[in-house]
Amino acid sequence: MSKEITSRATDYSQWYNDIVLKSGLADYSAVKGCMVIKPHGFALWENMRDVLDRMFKDTGHQNAYFPLFIPKSFLSREAAHVEGFAKECAVVTHYRLKNDPNGGGVVVDPEAKLEEELIVRPTSETIIWNTYKDWIQSYRDLPILVNQWANVVRWEMRTRLFLRTTEFLWQEGHTAHATRDEAIEETRQMLEVYARFAEEYMAVPVIRGVKTANERFAGAEDTYCIEALMQDGKALQAGTSHFLGQNFAKAFDVQFRDKQNNLDYVWATSWGVSTRLIGALVMAHSDDQGLVLPPRIAPLQVVIVPIMSKDPAAQARINEVADKLTAELRAKGVTVKYDNDDTTRPGWKFAEYEMKGIPVRVALGARDLENNVAEVARRDTGVKSSVQLDGLGDHIVTLLDDIQSELYRRALEFRTTNTHRVDTWDEFVKVLDEKAGFIAAHWDGTGETEEKIKELTKATIRCIPLNNPAEEGSCILTGKPSSQRVLFARAY
Amino acid sequence: MSKEITSRATDYSQWYNDIVLKSGLADYSAVKGCMVIKPHGFALWENMRDVLDRMFKDTGHQNAYFPLFIPKSFLSREAAHVEGFAKECAVVTHYRLKNDPNGGGVVVDPEAKLEEELIVRPTSETIIWNTYKDWIQSYRDLPILVNQWANVVRWEMRTRLFLRTTEFLWQEGHTAHATRDEAIEETRQMLEVYARFAEEYMAVPVIRGVKTANERFAGAEDTYCIEALMQDGKALQAGTSHFLGQNFAKAFDVQFRDKQNNLDYVWATSWGVSTRLIGALVMAHSDDQGLVLPPRIAPLQVVIVPIMSKDPAAQARINEVADKLTAELRAKGVTVKYDNDDTTRPGWKFAEYEMKGIPVRVALGARDLENNVAEVARRDTGVKSSVQLDGLGDHIVTLLDDIQSELYRRALEFRTTNTHRVDTWDEFVKVLDEKAGFIAAHWDGTGETEEKIKELTKATIRCIPLNNPAEEGSCILTGKPSSQRVLFARAY
Repeated sequence: MSKEITSRATDYSQWYNDIVLKSGLADYSAVKGCMVIKPHGFALWENMRDVLDRMFKDTGHQNAYFPLFIPKSFLSREAAHVEGFAKECAVVTHYRLKNDPNGGGVVVDPEAKLEEELIVRPTSETIIWNTYKDWIQSYRDLPILVNQWANVVRWEMRTRLFLRTTEFLWQEGHTAHATRDEAIEETRQMLEVYARFAEEYMAVPVIRGVKTANERFAGAEDTYCIEALMQDGKALQAGTSHFLGQNFAKAFDVQFRDKQNNLDYVWATSWGVSTRLIGALVMAHSDDQGLVLPPRIAPLQVVIVPIMSKDPAAQARINEVADKLTAELRAKGVTVKYDNDDTTRPGWKFAEYEMKGIPVRVALGARDLENNVAEVARRDTGVKSSVQLDGLGDHIVTLLDDIQSELYRRALEFRTTNTHRVDTWDEFVKVLDEKAGFIAAHWDGTGETEEKIKELTKATIRCIPLNNPAEEGSCILTGKPSSQRVLFARAY
Repeated sequence: MSKEITSRATDYSQWYNDIVLKSGLADYSAVKGCMVIKPHGFALWENMRDVLDRMFKDTGHQNAYFPLFIPKSFLSREAAHVEGFAKECAVVTHYRLKNDPNGGGVVVDPEAKLEEELIVRPTSETIIWNTYKDWIQSYRDLPILVNQWANVVRWEMRTRLFLRTTEFLWQEGHTAHATRDEAIEETRQMLEVYARFAEEYMAVPVIRGVKTANERFAGAEDTYCIEALMQDGKALQAGTSHFLGQNFAKAFDVQFRDKQNNLDYVWATSWGVSTRLIGALVMAHSDDQGLVLPPRIAPLQVVIVPIMSKDPAAQARINEVADKLTAELRAKGVTVKYDNDDTTRPGWKFAEYEMKGIPVRVALGARDLENNVAEVARRDTGVKSSVQLDGLGDHIVTLLDDIQSELYRRALEFRTTNTHRVDTWDEFVKVLDEKAGFIAAHWDGTGETEEKIKELTKATIRCIPLNNPAEEGSCILTGKPSSQRVLFARAY
């Protein structure tokens, strides 16, 4: 099975596609740029969604649902927003088909043309702020802390499974506040929620930072982000949280009366993460044998594989141990499957669960059981050990925690090793080409220089880290003075 | 507050809209026919979704996600399906907008026309069976038991909140089987899952039945359904489960090799329920004071309202009792909120929670507490009682069960009272107009007669109940012989 996966060293990009397809996460579809999320991939997304949803609710948010379609004119209301989002999108122009008068099939009915075209939402600020106008009159109606889980569509010319697809699943939080400070606090709070989720559940260390003006969300005053480093040394933006100022309130005329009865525009935030996170997860931990999943979000944490015995007594003993272990692990909150399908061999199952990234595999064989031990294999390191049956359940619970920590530790070590401080242009280019990773370098603070560096090297400023220390220096490209280092990388 | 609701007697239809809008379930949107599901409505949907999702998983199903868009040509592949679904739908014809050369705003870029139009899914049989073609080669790949939670779009000219909206949320199960019998068994199993959900969680009794050929899903060999009766005597189809035969397998050429290595087409089912269920829930239980929610799916089961005291010691005692009760109820798995907002009065809160359908309200006043009692009000009957603090938590848990049972009992009694056996045409018309409800009557079994009855009375055959007793009789319209009664009603 593992032979079917291209190795990372051979072709990283092909390795990624192989992992996604062969581990059963997703599949290509008949619709250009859209994918099918297969059961294993969707179960992973459900686990991620459920954890995030709990974190959103614990911070006071409620879910709601807004229309899939946005009237075309709404997109033009906010000047920066339309530039960012109105261009590459799916446009609904008609609402009926009819039988083809020239024979087979159906054609668009020209008489069913919409007066105003509808856009399939690329993001929902406009339709939501148009709704908030009806919900907000007074400070008593604030804050509004709403999130929606939805599908969105951005027409992409070059797509990649999970990382960039025309349709994707995400959540988008849209909050409304009475003051600027409260909105900024919300923006930062949700960034921290994303960072905690990435680190504690996905085992992916992230840099918390703020985007430069060039890289900001279209319509935001500030875009905060978390940035992760993939195994090929490229960065991946894993989540963003936007402080929108009063831009959308002004565009949709959403004003409120404060306690002093003065009218003011409402302050806004929006924040989102998407199925792209699954791409980040794959590229952060997986290896040439397949997917590697952190136990805290794995759809299945433990698989028990019997080495079938022809001796009925021995087989009964295997089943008995498996059933007992299954019950014990379930009682401890561990997801577990006893795969006693007798149409496939143990070796095939081992490879299959390895490919699917199941964190722990327990093999039960008659001879091992005679010695009161089982073979326990951990997916992250591939290490197998012989473990006493007595205490096996507890051993596995501890092992799952170990795997979670080890994945994070490894990813953090990788990032540390692959973050470089660079002070000259030559070194910058050399490091980018030979080592990749994050580069902490001085920049003169202008959009022109940022753009020029991108043109020359394809590297972008991923973010200005939060709590970045002040440091005098000279811009690597222009030599102009700089007061802090920023983080560059080539990125997904 | 309740004065704002039109009474059922005055205008049932307006009453329904008032309830949905004023209880915070949903709102109209800027997009014709689409609605905004507000936090209270979405929390209800989440609870319904979570219960159903657990029932689907307990019967071996997994979730997946398929594209929002369907290539236009796919719809034409199954002859009956295209007639049913290809006509009123949202058609994506372009993938880009551009700045209007004549000034303000954006216009559709004529150069960005799709070669083949994409349809926003009205249901996903076609795109899914096109995918299953790649997933199924042998009997070993079967069954496929997949469900998806998704939004779908059917262009509707006349829409009603929840009951009929252009976009709605639903789940659609799509399964693939090696044999006809197994597929039929699956179809019936999922019908039973829906019926149990409606009765045990929504407290809505349903008739399990099968549709006549005229009312079948477009592309199905048999459509099973559950039918509920609303308070105005109209029926509402609350869920359907379709046996699709080999129709979609043939349309998308999905064949498999059986154990004997013979090629055959795969057998299919599909089944779905939608946010329409929320409309059914509203119309089954609510009253002229607002929403009435069954405890098992209510977003909030218990609200505790303090009668604020100016005496600090008395107020401290109120808070203490509230906190203790809150903790006790949460430990028993009950959702509870202590609403100690001091900017609104108790009377306002009572009306608000009544409107929102919260099953149990506990009022805590200083004088009551001196007597070691609290006032407990149940939303379904409006009955208030004074309950000893000692054992209050257990009392509430029992009361929630009582409310759940009572709602079901009441709805069942209503249905029994409003189900009429009718044997003549005159009586049929008279009962329809004067009493409404379900009418059990003889029908000659032809589509023509069914159509004629619909034209004359707007009543349709809701279903042929499962396990319907054989009974000789004469068709109410034609007088031709009939072997069983079927259920007629006017319907949503």
